[in-house]
Amino acid sequence: MDPIVNPAIDGVHLTPLAEIETPEGAVLHFVRGMEAIGSFGEVYFSEVHPGVVKAWKLHKRQKQNFCVPVGRIFLVLYDDRHDSPTRGTISQLSLGRPDAYCRLTIPHGIWYGFKGSAPATSLICNVTDIPHDPAEAVKMPIHGSSIPFNWDQSS
Amino acid sequence: MDPIVNPAIDGVHLTPLAEIETPEGAVLHFVRGMEAIGSFGEVYFSEVHPGVVKAWKLHKRQKQNFCVPVGRIFLVLYDDRHDSPTRGTISQLSLGRPDAYCRLTIPHGIWYGFKGSAPATSLICNVTDIPHDPAEAVKMPIHGSSIPFNWDQSS
Repeated sequence: MDPIVNPAIDGVHLTPLAEIETPEGAVLHFVRGMEAIGSFGEVYFSEVHPGVVKAWKLHKRQKQNFCVPVGRIFLVLYDDRHDSPTRGTISQLSLGRPDAYCRLTIPHGIWYGFKGSAPATSLICNVTDIPHDPAEAVKMPIHGSSIPFNWDQSS
Repeated sequence: MDPIVNPAIDGVHLTPLAEIETPEGAVLHFVRGMEAIGSFGEVYFSEVHPGVVKAWKLHKRQKQNFCVPVGRIFLVLYDDRHDSPTRGTISQLSLGRPDAYCRLTIPHGIWYGFKGSAPATSLICNVTDIPHDPAEAVKMPIHGSSIPFNWDQSS
């Protein structure tokens, strides 16, 4: 797959990751070395049931590094940063195996949300650059926010 | 569950982790902050198909931090370190949700192996303290090794 978020959002990166298939089960790369993430804060998982949306969220200071080792996730990103060259951009992408097994890096200041698009529960793993701090996270409701995207019409 | 590897092996630790259930899907803690792991090397996944064994492996320098967010894994550890107070000990344990969602820390110098014990493919996530280096990993075959454990008679 093309490892580019389309349309691009300044600071958002998609990095293809190795999937090493073996008869016993695959080995899946995610993050190797601190240089890939800048600094280390936390590793956690977020399950997403089929058809369920988790949105909208924005981190004021924390950077996200997502991958989807199980299932499939449809993601939407929205750039509302006042000083961004890509302000106003909505990006939609899908993460999952085998064709979209990538690390998605989302800088702070970007709105994001996602939907489980596999028939069973999907799993996101997130490696952040600072530990969880509820004071730096902002949420908006799925419906009726100022973000120009309608989850009801999404795949 | 009792967060103790039984019988104990010197330096092996089991840390219970939070599982935060929500209607959209659980949030699962794994590693928060560098102090939990000492230093950061790599995050990767290892799938294990049902009934399949991946064994034996020993790292000469690298520390492992395992958790099992999907499925169930039966693990066997063997301490053959010459200077260890628990030398000769075989420990058996199971990791998985919801009752055994823990971080298993395996110091370098311990032989380990595991088997997929769920009906579907299980997933291990591993956070290591140094990046992958094939020169510091040692393997022995599943059968016929000097380790006093028979995988054919395991659950």
